[in-house]
Amino acid sequence: MIMNEHDQNRARMLISCPDKPGIVATVSQFLFEHGANIVQSDQYTMDPEGGMFFIRIEFDLDNLEQRQEALLQDFQTITERFEMDCTIHIASVKKRLAIMVSKEDHCLRELLWQWQAGDLTADIAMVISNHNDMREFTESFGIPYYHIPVTPDTKQEAERRQIELMRGQVDAVILARYMQIISPELLECFPNRIINIHHSFLPAFVGGKPYAQAYNRGVKIIGATAHFVTEELDGGPIIEQDVQRVDHRDNIDDLKRIGRHIERTVLARAVNWYVEDRILVHHNKTVVFN
Amino acid sequence: MIMNEHDQNRARMLISCPDKPGIVATVSQFLFEHGANIVQSDQYTMDPEGGMFFIRIEFDLDNLEQRQEALLQDFQTITERFEMDCTIHIASVKKRLAIMVSKEDHCLRELLWQWQAGDLTADIAMVISNHNDMREFTESFGIPYYHIPVTPDTKQEAERRQIELMRGQVDAVILARYMQIISPELLECFPNRIINIHHSFLPAFVGGKPYAQAYNRGVKIIGATAHFVTEELDGGPIIEQDVQRVDHRDNIDDLKRIGRHIERTVLARAVNWYVEDRILVHHNKTVVFN
Amino acid sequence: MIMNEHDQNRARMLISCPDKPGIVATVSQFLFEHGANIVQSDQYTMDPEGGMFFIRIEFDLDNLEQRQEALLQDFQTITERFEMDCTIHIASVKKRLAIMVSKEDHCLRELLWQWQAGDLTADIAMVISNHNDMREFTESFGIPYYHIPVTPDTKQEAERRQIELMRGQVDAVILARYMQIISPELLECFPNRIINIHHSFLPAFVGGKPYAQAYNRGVKIIGATAHFVTEELDGGPIIEQDVQRVDHRDNIDDLKRIGRHIERTVLARAVNWYVEDRILVHHNKTVVFN
Amino acid sequence: MIMNEHDQNRARMLISCPDKPGIVATVSQFLFEHGANIVQSDQYTMDPEGGMFFIRIEFDLDNLEQRQEALLQDFQTITERFEMDCTIHIASVKKRLAIMVSKEDHCLRELLWQWQAGDLTADIAMVISNHNDMREFTESFGIPYYHIPVTPDTKQEAERRQIELMRGQVDAVILARYMQIISPELLECFPNRIINIHHSFLPAFVGGKPYAQAYNRGVKIIGATAHFVTEELDGGPIIEQDVQRVDHRDNIDDLKRIGRHIERTVLARAVNWYVEDRILVHHNKTVVFN
Repeated sequence: MIMNEHDQNRARMLISCPDKPGIVATVSQFLFEHGANIVQSDQYTMDPEGGMFFIRIEFDLDNLEQRQEALLQDFQTITERFEMDCTIHIASVKKRLAIMVSKEDHCLRELLWQWQAGDLTADIAMVISNHNDMREFTESFGIPYYHIPVTPDTKQEAERRQIELMRGQVDAVILARYMQIISPELLECFPNRIINIHHSFLPAFVGGKPYAQAYNRGVKIIGATAHFVTEELDGGPIIEQDVQRVDHRDNIDDLKRIGRHIERTVLARAVNWYVEDRILVHHNKTVVFN
Repeated sequence: MIMNEHDQNRARMLISCPDKPGIVATVSQFLFEHGANIVQSDQYTMDPEGGMFFIRIEFDLDNLEQRQEALLQDFQTITERFEMDCTIHIASVKKRLAIMVSKEDHCLRELLWQWQAGDLTADIAMVISNHNDMREFTESFGIPYYHIPVTPDTKQEAERRQIELMRGQVDAVILARYMQIISPELLECFPNRIINIHHSFLPAFVGGKPYAQAYNRGVKIIGATAHFVTEELDGGPIIEQDVQRVDHRDNIDDLKRIGRHIERTVLARAVNWYVEDRILVHHNKTVVFN
Repeated sequence: MIMNEHDQNRARMLISCPDKPGIVATVSQFLFEHGANIVQSDQYTMDPEGGMFFIRIEFDLDNLEQRQEALLQDFQTITERFEMDCTIHIASVKKRLAIMVSKEDHCLRELLWQWQAGDLTADIAMVISNHNDMREFTESFGIPYYHIPVTPDTKQEAERRQIELMRGQVDAVILARYMQIISPELLECFPNRIINIHHSFLPAFVGGKPYAQAYNRGVKIIGATAHFVTEELDGGPIIEQDVQRVDHRDNIDDLKRIGRHIERTVLARAVNWYVEDRILVHHNKTVVFN
Repeated sequence: MIMNEHDQNRARMLISCPDKPGIVATVSQFLFEHGANIVQSDQYTMDPEGGMFFIRIEFDLDNLEQRQEALLQDFQTITERFEMDCTIHIASVKKRLAIMVSKEDHCLRELLWQWQAGDLTADIAMVISNHNDMREFTESFGIPYYHIPVTPDTKQEAERRQIELMRGQVDAVILARYMQIISPELLECFPNRIINIHHSFLPAFVGGKPYAQAYNRGVKIIGATAHFVTEELDGGPIIEQDVQRVDHRDNIDDLKRIGRHIERTVLARAVNWYVEDRILVHHNKTVVFN
């Protein structure tokens, strides 16, 4: 990972396209001619013959902000020639995040803590919860807290209110143990930009009470999974997973305690990769350049 | 782990019973009065109030072999009083194993190798395969190799022949990537004594082609699972699991290659625990005192 | 791990002594006769012939608090017979801890957080720091904060004040990235009861700037070590270690960031084992029954 | 990792040079103009301002073998302009390896096994040992085995004979637990091309009997390190390390047994990276593009 005091001139370019000869040459030539210096580059070709091509380039360019628009315009002909899906992000423009949480607080705490320590370089625009428990903690960081209760009766209104708060205001939504189903409307506002932490090693133990499921199955290792939310429950593209060894002595409460540690670690890693523009999604899988 | 030059006097006692006060006192008092010295003891109580109690005791006793029978007889009143399920094994009496294998050879190689290196202290009584590929390798260790082809037509005869070879001749059967369904009759001969290696982190990816399943789901970690075989496919008590990190660059062949390493490690560990009498089964779960 | 709603009747017994036949029988018989029910027991014999014997027993006993003294008195003859070093702890009597910290806050945060979440069942009696930075954070938990600056001139007075605050007031001292040398006088007050986190995988990179040392050596894995403090710098008995993979891309700042996560995890684990009476020290090594 | 049926047209290019703008553009433009298709590329910049730049490019080029020389000649002007250290390897031209071994056989077994399974795509040109123990095993693979005893008297002659056998005949030398000091003359023949496995997590436990050292220090994790051999004992550039958890129950023999597994895994990984041209050395550190 490369840090830089001149981050205002650091950009990250993400490209997906069908693989063809000449992509790297064309893109790097373009950047060179525009005075940009490539400082990091990662690429992946699914299949050299006819597969998809993915690349993430970090480059430095003087007066980046003023020149970003012209750069993109000039690049237009290249994206068209190679049928590229391309985005350019300025590293110094922080992603804006909304965090949604229910009663379990460990993931929220980890995120706000890493944010405060400077390890998570994003703007936390708001925390939304169906409970009021974490208000004091959240507000102590100077972050707005919205309590939107969700009951069968208020569900529709709650979802409307959530969208109202977040649409256009944030780049992504982090479900930090938010235990309600996300509405299709909210999903549509943030395609592949809602990150959930599921408290199992997916695809094992989809759905509710995964630690009880794990205990009953007698697994020797438990895990957690950060994934983008799609319409299929716990079925979206996996961003990151991690695991820890357990044994017969660990009851369900022990699994939950051990799992909390995995969950917050895994979610924080996924969110960091998102805000650093390290994740590309293709079909139902992710390419993570970390 | 305690090694001992006087292993012929080393015994291992495995007990399962409903938890009650006084079990440890009674058992250890009994052993002390009979001149045994406890060198290792592990116990586990599922729930102090009304749960199951499990204990594994290693003890040294002079002239163990001659006194084993009398010891067991004397212990009878204790097993009855506490409704114990109890076995005593002499450490120097090696378990006899049959290994079944198909075409993938890495698990068989690992087991024979560890056996030759003295790390797996068992007798490998025979290798049975539905292919002839591993004959030369197996026989180079001086181990009998039985080629029993399995086709829809010969299935029944093959299963009969398998049982004939193994029943009464071996203590346990190790499925070292044996890709045929085990017959109910064979299962009945070796209850909780058939160990299989499944090439996924169960319960994820039950059934066939788990690496293809894992690739398609886009998991970031793959694993392998050693378990006792029961009638439910890939559903028996889990003995051991391990995992390794993969990423988007790894195609199905890479997953298989990485997986082979996990599979042989996990299976060898499970077999070692079995031959050292470290595994107790309760319902569909294992207690492993390792 | 066994939790119990009747924790006020739960005790933990730690014994070290030269190995001899009959120890387990005698101790378990004693507990049984006094009406105690053993719910967990772990033991370790260094060498069956003439080595040391260690055991940790968790037992339940009605009216434990009232009977503790009589129990210990009755047990006296046994401890003498076997030359035992024996302690009995009531699980419901929480250990009292002092935490010392300098400017790096992640270990302190993790400990207070786990304490608040109920995962660390101890009393945090005070936080002592040579800086004033963490006062507000600490006091927000209702924990007293003592700012004791340490300069070459004030060193002696500072150490006197530290001992004054802690001696007799706390059971153990946790150095949560406290960057000053501990005085011999303080060490003497808390033999094998001062736990330090060293930010390397000891014995690699003893002393200052271990992450810079690790970067310069080009290691592929970094770690952290929790150990009891002795007079030898970074040389005391190791309680716990953990590691994480790094690569050439990680500069010293990256190592520090990754390391912070390992450090707080490892220290928290060690402190938890201490407060649960899981650690025995023998010469310069630990036996951890976890 | 990308496999390809057309491997005879697959090349790998390794470049180290001072970082300057335009390197990637120039190199990729050059390859594109010569009809090459980049299928994989990894790069690393130590410090965007004035640091070193490293890149590994895999590309496909029709009729690679015939065109290799011309390609290199054309590339000359670029290597000169950027002061590059550049090598191009044809993937289908296997590296030739000599393996040196003493009495411990597990590393040699793992390498030959992986070689036989097709996981290690190199030519094993010979095995050299100061003992005769592994002759039969080695020759069963059809690999020449040279027994060169090393005693104080024969040392010089032995070293002369080693060089005679290997110089110009192999690309690299693998010390698979070869327990003799490598002569400066041999080192000179194979600069950064002698890979050793050290049975500890370096820089901890340099020198002899590392498992005994680890046991005495009471570490909770042990490891192994693959590194290039230099004149400083156990001090050369580290290629790969791995570790495994141990506990107080593990005596020195247990550590050795557990360590054997780590050693063979780590060495095999390092050798695989070497033969796939994934390792660049800069000063005393490695850049591994894996």
